[in-house]
This record gives sequence, structure tokens and C-alpha cells, in this order.
Amino acid sequence: MNEMKKLFSHLMSIIYYIYTYNIYQKIRLFCVYIHSQWIRNSFRKCERSSHIGSNVTVLGGNKIEIGNHTGISDNCMIEARSVEVLETKHTQIKIGDRCSIGEYCHITAINRIEIGNNVLTGRFVLISDNDHGTTKLEDLYKSPLVRKLVSKGPVIIHDNVWIGDKVSILSGVEIGEGCIIAANSVVTRDVPAYSVVGGIPAKVLKSNK
Amino acid sequence: MNEMKKLFSHLMSIIYYIYTYNIYQKIRLFCVYIHSQWIRNSFRKCERSSHIGSNVTVLGGNKIEIGNHTGISDNCMIEARSVEVLETKHTQIKIGDRCSIGEYCHITAINRIEIGNNVLTGRFVLISDNDHGTTKLEDLYKSPLVRKLVSKGPVIIHDNVWIGDKVSILSGVEIGEGCIIAANSVVTRDVPAYSVVGGIPAKVLKSNK
Amino acid sequence: MNEMKKLFSHLMSIIYYIYTYNIYQKIRLFCVYIHSQWIRNSFRKCERSSHIGSNVTVLGGNKIEIGNHTGISDNCMIEARSVEVLETKHTQIKIGDRCSIGEYCHITAINRIEIGNNVLTGRFVLISDNDHGTTKLEDLYKSPLVRKLVSKGPVIIHDNVWIGDKVSILSGVEIGEGCIIAANSVVTRDVPAYSVVGGIPAKVLKSNK
Repeated sequence: MNEMKKLFSHLMSIIYYIYTYNIYQKIRLFCVYIHSQWIRNSFRKCERSSHIGSNVTVLGGNKIEIGNHTGISDNCMIEARSVEVLETKHTQIKIGDRCSIGEYCHITAINRIEIGNNVLTGRFVLISDNDHGTTKLEDLYKSPLVRKLVSKGPVIIHDNVWIGDKVSILSGVEIGEGCIIAANSVVTRDVPAYSVVGGIPAKVLKSNK
Repeated sequence: MNEMKKLFSHLMSIIYYIYTYNIYQKIRLFCVYIHSQWIRNSFRKCERSSHIGSNVTVLGGNKIEIGNHTGISDNCMIEARSVEVLETKHTQIKIGDRCSIGEYCHITAINRIEIGNNVLTGRFVLISDNDHGTTKLEDLYKSPLVRKLVSKGPVIIHDNVWIGDKVSILSGVEIGEGCIIAANSVVTRDVPAYSVVGGIPAKVLKSNK
Repeated sequence: MNEMKKLFSHLMSIIYYIYTYNIYQKIRLFCVYIHSQWIRNSFRKCERSSHIGSNVTVLGGNKIEIGNHTGISDNCMIEARSVEVLETKHTQIKIGDRCSIGEYCHITAINRIEIGNNVLTGRFVLISDNDHGTTKLEDLYKSPLVRKLVSKGPVIIHDNVWIGDKVSILSGVEIGEGCIIAANSVVTRDVPAYSVVGGIPAKVLKSNK
């Protein structure tokens, strides 16, 4: 058995000489490029220079706009949901130019989410402008799934912001230009421009103004 | 080259008119439905009205029960492991009716995990009733992989609980009815009913009783 | 319609008798084993006894070494990037023997990351020895994507360390032997051997020496 495993392992090494990881990556990237040029048509606007990764889930694409040279990485989920009281004929999610949204991110809007230019996010980031109901008793008696979605306000992220891995940005938050949001933070309040914030809830660690 | 890219992009737009994202989603959902009706047979009990997403990993399915109209989203991992000292002929993991378990969640039991009805979880949530050994020196000298799995007690989550993204719920914890567990929290102690908790370790942010 | 769904569900149950989840898992594991023996050739060194999961992304494999009986789980990302000022002819990422790196982990080095033997990590763990620029104003005015990658020092993780789910370990950090890093922590400073740390930033919860 061990001899067979060894032989098999050598065989795969020979195959590797012909079909390397580099070749695999190039083929994969080409397939993702095809997919990207196809799925971008599901958005209200998504420039040809932007890139949508594989296995990206889109809901309400006709309310989502993506600028130039922006990348939405694999396995992201972008959702623009209509809730009656809010005007939803307009764009609900707007992502600017030259942004890079990391893998496994989740952007979900019932109100409005605006991401400026040059915004970089890590992986597993949540940007949400809504909650499943309030924290009042009358809501807590119900199933979270039937509670009415509520928004404390739109989420606005200005230019040149860097958001670390596993950050959660909640509703009604505005993040100023040039901020750094440290890994694993939960942002529940506005962040002034050019500051570094971190923790749960996120507090200013360094202020530059 | 740029001209070719443009042409190619136009071609994909034409293809999109015939094969839209909506059609793709419907085909995908149908495939997941087939998969769901197949994989539900690997559980001790999983009602036909419940839904198991694609790429869900199951271990010890004969010790797992899932109720009615519950959804386990894509890429989840549910593990019921036998450890000699504990009685494992019974159900180890029980998930109630009308729950929604978000994508990439991990539920792992060596003791017992009970999730009530109408429980909603975000993505990347960990619910674990076990640890790799204790924090005593004699354990820390060993490889974590050979330390004996230990449980401080079962995890019990009552009805109507909403658990945010990236929450970790550790062993021996009971979460009362109607609680909200804020995003990125680590729950290490019991949570009284109808309270909102958050942080590491999770503390009561709002108490309704 | 409901009758058809019922019939269909019964059909899938019959198919399950022939093609069970167990059989599916064995086929899947065999495919992953083939893939593992193929992709290990993309590393500078990766012993035959080690296992690389499916959909693992590798960058700069010629600067990465993996020992014996180590497992890199599915969907991980391991990146060794060359940055001019640092010597990159050497190994940048070294993972020892009998380690288990959980799913969806991200290890990214521009400097050096060393992981000892018997290290166990949870899922969604980030181990990074670099940042997108500093926190100085001159950097914050720029796009995070064009900021120069900087490292505060290598990351060194000694033997028998257990790292929980969703932990982030940042640059310049040394974690001593036999430590436990609690779930959702962010490690920004050195951790003395045989201690248990947790929180954002991670603080010593229990010291054994």
C-alpha cells in the first residue's frame, strides 16, 4: 500500500511538470474573467474594467452600481433588498473606482450603502445597513425571521479607507476618508477621517487630526 | 488586445440576454434542492420541508436531528463526534423548526447541542460544546491534536434567538429565549432571556427583564 | 405540486440507499488526495505525508516549506510575496510537522512566518506579517492598495499552540510554546509560553509560568 502511494505520488509529480499550478491558475483566471464579463450585466451599472469573482451572489442587481477598476473577490454576497417604506427605485449600493472587496464579504442594504474610491477590505467583512427588528420586547417575542428589517441609516464609507479582516460595519455609520479599521472590529458609530479604530465596539486608537 | 477585450465583453453581454443571472440562480437552486433531498437521508431525522445547502459537511449524521422548514446554508459543517465517556446513542445535535443557519457556520458537539425554533444565525458562526483539552500545564505540553476533547457542558439555545455574524458560542452555555447576540461576540457564559449581549467575552448590553 | 415534491423526495431517498453520503465523502477525499499530491509540487518543500485541501490558493510557493503529516484544509490561502528590501531567496513561510491549519485560513508573508510543530488552528484565522502602509497621515492620503507593504517583524508561532476560530495574528508577534489563543482574538503583541490569551487586543487570561 505504502509503495503504491509512493508510486502514485511520483506520478502526480510527473504530471505536475506538464500541468503546473501556474497553468491551472491562468486557466482559472480566464474562466473567472469570462464569468465576470457575463455577471456584470446583472448590475444596474458595472464597468467593463471591474472584476466580479466566481461564486458571487447578487440580489437586486438593478439597484447596485460598481465603478471602474474595482474588484469584488470570490464568494462575496451583495444584496439590495426592497423594503416598502424606502425609495428603492434608486441605486441602493454604490461602489466607487479602484476598490478591492476581499473574499467572503457580505454587503447588504435595505436603505443605502455607499463605498467611495480606493477602498480596500479584508476577508469576511460584513457591511450592513439593517437589522432584524429592534431590541424592544415586542420584537424579541417574535421569530427574528419575521421581524421587520429596520435601518438606523445609510452606511457611507469615504475614499482610501482600509478595512481589516472580519470587521463588521453596522447601520447608520459614516467612515471618513483615509481611515484604518483594525481586524475583527465592530463599527457601530461614525469614524472621523484619518483615524485608526479597533475593538468591539470600535474605538479610536489613533487620531491624525 | 483592448479591442478584443471589448468585443469579448460585448459577446458576453449578448449571451447574458439569453442566459441571465436569474436563470442561472434558478438552475442552481434546483440543483441544491436535489442535493438537499439526497443529503437529508444522512441525518437521523431531517424533515422534507427543511433545506440543506450545497457543500455542507456532515459528521455523525445518525446523531443529528433537524426539524421542519429549517435551512442549513451552503458551506456549513455539522459534526457530532463520539467520545467514549458520553452516551452517544442518543441525538447529540438537535435543531428545531423554522431555523436559519447562515453560510460557513460550524456546529460541533461531543456532548449535546440543542437549538430551539426560529433561531437565526449570521455567517461564520461557531457553536461548539468542546475544547481541545484543558488549560492545565500537563495538557499544554502536548500537541493540541492529541489532547482529549473535553466539554464544560451542553450548549442550549432557546427559541427566537438572533445570532450575528462571526459569533463564537462556547461549551456549557445556555442562551435564553428572544436574545440578540451582537456580531463578532464570544459567548462564554449563560445569557438571560430577552437580553442583547456583545463583546469578548459577551456582556449584557440591554436587559429586558 | 406538493405530491410531486413528495414523490421526488422519495426518489432521492431510494438513490441515497445506493449512493450514500459515506460513498460521496470517500470519492471526494480520494479526489482531494490526488489534488494534494499534485499541488504539493508547487511548494519549495512539502512532504508527501502532508495534505493540501481543495481550492487552496498558493502565491510564491517556491518560498514556502511544509513539514511532515501536516494538513492545510480546504479554501486556505498561503501567500509569500517578494518585497525588494527583504531577502526573499530564502524560505518566507515555514510550517512544521503534524500541524493542522483550519479551513478558510489566510497566511500572508512579505517578511517571514514560522509555524512550529503540532500547531492547530481553527477556521477563518489570519496570520499576517505585513500591513498596507503605516498609520501616518502621508500614507492615509493614499489608496491603501498603492501604500507600500510594511512589516513590523516576522511572526513566529512555537510548538503545541492552539489557535481558535477567527483569530487574527498580526506582524512582529512571537507566540510561545503551548499557548491557547481564544476564539475571535486579535494578537498584536508577544505571548509568553504556556499562557491562555483572548480579546481585542489579546490579553493574558491565564498564565502557567
